Amino acid sequence: MLKFLFIGDVVGRPGRDIIASRLPQLRAQHGIDLVIANAENAAAGSGITGVIAKTLLSCGVDAITLGDHVWDQKGWEDEIGSFERVCRPANLPASNPGRDHVILQAKGFRLAVFTVLGRQYLNIKADCPFLAADRMLKEIGDKANGAFVEIHAEATSEKQAMGWHLDGRAIAVLGTHTHVPTADASVLPKGTAFMCDVGMTGPYASVLGREVKPVLEKFITGMPRRFEVAEQDVRLSAALVTFDPKEKRATKCELITIRSNASGPRVSLDGGHSND
Amino acid sequence: MLKFLFIGDVVGRPGRDIIASRLPQLRAQHGIDLVIANAENAAAGSGITGVIAKTLLSCGVDAITLGDHVWDQKGWEDEIGSFERVCRPANLPASNPGRDHVILQAKGFRLAVFTVLGRQYLNIKADCPFLAADRMLKEIGDKANGAFVEIHAEATSEKQAMGWHLDGRAIAVLGTHTHVPTADASVLPKGTAFMCDVGMTGPYASVLGREVKPVLEKFITGMPRRFEVAEQDVRLSAALVTFDPKEKRATKCELITIRSNASGPRVSLDGGHSND
Amino acid sequence: MLKFLFIGDVVGRPGRDIIASRLPQLRAQHGIDLVIANAENAAAGSGITGVIAKTLLSCGVDAITLGDHVWDQKGWEDEIGSFERVCRPANLPASNPGRDHVILQAKGFRLAVFTVLGRQYLNIKADCPFLAADRMLKEIGDKANGAFVEIHAEATSEKQAMGWHLDGRAIAVLGTHTHVPTADASVLPKGTAFMCDVGMTGPYASVLGREVKPVLEKFITGMPRRFEVAEQDVRLSAALVTFDPKEKRATKCELITIRSNASGPRVSLDGGHSND
Amino acid sequence: MLKFLFIGDVVGRPGRDIIASRLPQLRAQHGIDLVIANAENAAAGSGITGVIAKTLLSCGVDAITLGDHVWDQKGWEDEIGSFERVCRPANLPASNPGRDHVILQAKGFRLAVFTVLGRQYLNIKADCPFLAADRMLKEIGDKANGAFVEIHAEATSEKQAMGWHLDGRAIAVLGTHTHVPTADASVLPKGTAFMCDVGMTGPYASVLGREVKPVLEKFITGMPRRFEVAEQDVRLSAALVTFDPKEKRATKCELITIRSNASGPRVSLDGGHSND
Ligand SMILES: [Fe+2]
Ligand SMILES: [Fe+2]
Ligand SMILES: [Fe+2]
Ligand SMILES: [Fe+2]
Ligand SMILES: [Fe+2]
Ligand SMILES: [Fe+2]
Ligand SMILES: [Fe+2]
Ligand SMILES: [Fe+2]
Repeated sequence: MLKFLFIGDVVGRPGRDIIASRLPQLRAQHGIDLVIANAENAAAGSGITGVIAKTLLSCGVDAITLGDHVWDQKGWEDEIGSFERVCRPANLPASNPGRDHVILQAKGFRLAVFTVLGRQYLNIKADCPFLAADRMLKEIGDKANGAFVEIHAEATSEKQAMGWHLDGRAIAVLGTHTHVPTADASVLPKGTAFMCDVGMTGPYASVLGREVKPVLEKFITGMPRRFEVAEQDVRLSAALVTFDPKEKRATKCELITIRSNASGPRVSLDGGHSND
Repeated sequence: MLKFLFIGDVVGRPGRDIIASRLPQLRAQHGIDLVIANAENAAAGSGITGVIAKTLLSCGVDAITLGDHVWDQKGWEDEIGSFERVCRPANLPASNPGRDHVILQAKGFRLAVFTVLGRQYLNIKADCPFLAADRMLKEIGDKANGAFVEIHAEATSEKQAMGWHLDGRAIAVLGTHTHVPTADASVLPKGTAFMCDVGMTGPYASVLGREVKPVLEKFITGMPRRFEVAEQDVRLSAALVTFDPKEKRATKCELITIRSNASGPRVSLDGGHSND
Repeated sequence: MLKFLFIGDVVGRPGRDIIASRLPQLRAQHGIDLVIANAENAAAGSGITGVIAKTLLSCGVDAITLGDHVWDQKGWEDEIGSFERVCRPANLPASNPGRDHVILQAKGFRLAVFTVLGRQYLNIKADCPFLAADRMLKEIGDKANGAFVEIHAEATSEKQAMGWHLDGRAIAVLGTHTHVPTADASVLPKGTAFMCDVGMTGPYASVLGREVKPVLEKFITGMPRRFEVAEQDVRLSAALVTFDPKEKRATKCELITIRSNASGPRVSLDGGHSND
Repeated sequence: MLKFLFIGDVVGRPGRDIIASRLPQLRAQHGIDLVIANAENAAAGSGITGVIAKTLLSCGVDAITLGDHVWDQKGWEDEIGSFERVCRPANLPASNPGRDHVILQAKGFRLAVFTVLGRQYLNIKADCPFLAADRMLKEIGDKANGAFVEIHAEATSEKQAMGWHLDGRAIAVLGTHTHVPTADASVLPKGTAFMCDVGMTGPYASVLGREVKPVLEKFITGMPRRFEVAEQDVRLSAALVTFDPKEKRATKCELITIRSNASGPRVSLDGGHSND
C-alpha cells in the first residue's frame, strides 16, 4: 500500500508554520510516502515566492501545486521555472512559464501530479479542464505509474464531473480553492479517490483565512478593504489517500484535520466531523 | 434542550421518497422537535409545486424553504401564498409573492425560519443578504424566541461571513445550494450553529443529483443537454442542531447522513466521514 | 474595389422580413459583392433552423454566421452540417458540428468568413478567441485571398483588442452580440475595417429586439417572464466595407441603417447619427 | 431651449487635457447651459482625486458623476463629501460616503443629476437600478425641474430597459462605462433623450483608453500586466441634449466627438459616423 497526503491551500505564515511544525510527525505517524501541497495562498495570502517554495519543500512537502492565484506575486513568473517540484495549473495557456506537472517517486512508484483549474466563476484564463486532463494523462503516459489530479475550482458541479470523468484513470481527483473541507471523502466505483475540497491549511477563525472584520465591511459597504491573514484556530487540512498498486485502485480516502496547539479562540466548540 | 433538523436541497422523486420513508424514524430516534427542509429542487430537480409542498409537509417536514430555483415551476408563484409554512428567500425583491419567513412552535418555543440568497455567482435578483438578515431579525423581533437562518449561496466566503455576521444573534446559520455537505459543522464562539453546506437530499451517484453522462457531455461540448434526475445512492443529508433555550445558545451542530436501503451502486466505498 | 456587407444579428420574423424586402435593392444600390449575416436570433429570437437558413440564403445573403445562441433550436445541430454557406463560431469545441468557416467568391476574389466568440460574460464554452483567430488564419492560408472576421462578444475591451490583434491580417474585424450599433466605424492603421458592433436587424422599439414590458418586469421582479419578439420600428443594421484588393486594405467602413417603411411608433424621433 | 452636455468617462491626463483645452470653446459654440462629466477614470485611468475634481470643475464642468471605479483611489472616500457638485452612483449602499445626486441651475431651471449602476457583469455592490431610479425621482421631487439620469452599465439590455423605464419621467437617460459611443442617439416616444453609451473622453488609439500591447498580452497569456493610459488619438465624446422646458421634453439628442489637434496616429482613417 502507498499513502499520499494532499494538503489544501496553504494560507500565509500560519499555514506555513503549522506545516513546518506538524508535517514531519504526521508523515511518520501515518507512514505517508509522498506529500503534495497547494500553496497558492502561501505568500501573505496571495501567491507564492521562491523563498517560500524552498521553505515548504524543505519541511516535508514533496511537490507544490498552485491555483488561480499562481501569478499574484511579482517575480514568481521568472522563478517558477527553476523549481523541479513545483507545477502551475496544466490548463493555463501553453505560453505560461512553469511545469504543467511534477513526477515524484516513492518505493519504486512514480506518481505524476498535476492541477486543472475549473472554469466556472474563476477569474483566470484557462482551457477546458476536462480535455486538459485527458491530454495530460496521454502526455504523461508511461513516464509515471499513476496520476494524482487536483481540480482547483469553485463549482461543485465541475468538481464532481471531473471525478466521474477520471474515475478509473487517476489515483485521485481532489478539489481545492473553496478553503472549506467537504464531507464527501470517498472512492469512486472504478477506484479513484475523490473529495470536492480538502479545505484550507491556515487560520479558521476567519473568512477563508482572512480577518473577519474587513471582509464583512467589504460585503456590507462594497468598498475596498485590506484583508490581512488571520491568526487564530490554525489547522492543517488534507486528504490522505491509500492506494493499492497491485489492484491499481485507491482503497481509502480520508479527511485529515490537525489543529495547532496554540491557545486562543477556536471556531468550532463542537461538531459532528472533528478529527482532532 | 431543543433539537432542530435542517434538511438540504431535496432533489426530485428520490429526494422526496427518502424523506417519506426515513424522516419519521429519524425524528423519533433523535427526539427532534422541528424539521425544516429546503425543497428548491423537489420537482424533477427544478423548483417545487403545490402538490409536492403538501406531500413534504405531510411527511414530517414542518417548514419548507427555497433558493434560487424558487420560481422554476410555472404556477408556483400563484400557489406559494396559500402555504403558511413555506417561505421564499427573504432578500428577493419585496414585490415577489410568498412569505419571507415562517414561525414554527415546539415545546412553547417559537422558532422563526428564513432564507437569504448569496449574491456571488447566483443568477437571480436579490438584495444584500447581510442587510436583509439584519432587517428580518428586527422585523421578527418578539414574534419569535430565536431565528434559524439559511444562507443559500455558492461562495464559501459569503457563507462564512454570514456566520460571523449573525454569531450570537441567530440559533443557526446553515448553508445550502452546493449540494455537497461540508466538514465544518461547528458552533461559533457566541453560540450560533454553523455549517457551510448541509448537502443534498437525493441521488449521490450523480452530478448534484443529475445523471452524470449528459452533464459531462455539456461540460465537454458546451452544447445543451437534458439533465435527468439520477437514481442511485440516495441519501438524506441534514444538520442536527441542539439548542439550549436557557443559555440561549446552540450546544451542538452535527452533519447527519442517512443512506437509502435500496440496492445499487454507491459512490463511496469508503471515506473518513461516513455516518452510515 | 470590392464591397462587402455584414448584417448584424437578425431577430425573428421582423428581421427576416426586412432582409427579404430590402436587401436586393440595397445590394444593387451600393454595388455590393458579397453579403454576410449573423442569424443567431433568426428563429423567434433564439437560434436558427434549416428552413430559416434556406430562406435567408435565397434572399441575397451569401453566408450565415452564428453566435452564442447557435444551439438554441433543437435539431439544428443535426442540420448545420448540410449547409455549405453556414458556419458556427470557430472557437467552439472542436467536437461541435458545423463548419468553422465559409469561403465565398466574387469577381475572382475568395473571401474567408469566420466568427470568434468573446469569453467575457458570455455563457457558452469557447476557446481563446485570439489564438483561435490566429489558428484560423493559418488554416485558411492560401485557400482565400482575405479573411472577414466577426467578433461576437459583450465586452468592448475584447472587441477592440481583437481589432488590434488582427489589424493588417484581416479585411475586417466586426463586432456583433450587443444588438446596438456603435459609432466607431473605422479603418485601423494597417488597413483592417473595424467596428465594435454593427447592431441588430430587427425591431428597435424593444429591448434587444424583445417586447419591453416583460423584460422590464424581469429586471424589476427577478421572476421568469416570456420575452416575445417585438414588432415596431424594424431596421436592418449592417456595416458596409469597401476593400481595395490591390492595396490589400479596407478603404472605408460605414454603418448602414435601413428603416422599414411600415407605419407605427419609432424609437428615435431625432438623432445625431441617423442614416435614413 | 436648454442645452445640456454630458461627457463620457474621462480617462487620465489625455482626457483631462482635452476637456481643459476644448470645453470652453465647445460651450460657447453650441450655447451649452450645463455640462456634466463622468470622471471615474480621470486619475491615471482609475478613480478620481480631490485635486482632479477641482481641476475639472474649474474647466467648465458643472457636475461630476462616477461609476464602478468610484473608490479606486485611496483617500477619495474621505474627500468626496466636501464636493457639492460631485455625486457617487445613487444605488451604492446607503452607508457609502458622498452625495447621491447634484442639483445644478441654469436660466432658472434646476436640473437634478444622478447615476445608477447596472448590475449585469459589474463587479461592485449596488442595489436595483430601476427601483433606485424610482426612489431618486421621488426624493428629488420638487427640488428640481427635471432629472438627468446616467446609467453606468455594461449590458445594452439593462441600458435600453432603463430608457423605457424612465421615458417621460427623465430629461435624459444616457449610458456610460463601455468607453465606446453607440450610434443610437435618439429621443424616446415620451420625450426622454436616450443613448446606450456616450463613449470615452481620452485616447482612442487604445483598448478602452489603455495601451494596446499589455492588454493584448493579458488576453492571450492570462497573466497580470500593467495597463498604462494610452496617448494617441485623443477625443472628447459626449451627448448634447436639447430640452424644451415648455413642452417638458427633449427635442434632440446628438453624439458630439471632438478630436485633439495633436498630431500622431489616429485610429479612424474613415468612417460612416465621424463628427469632426
Ligand atoms: Fe486558495
Ligand atoms: Fe484558488
Ligand atoms: Fe439546490
Ligand atoms: Fe440553489
Ligand atoms: Fe444576438
Ligand atoms: Fe449573441
Ligand atoms: Fe469608465
Ligand atoms: Fe465603469
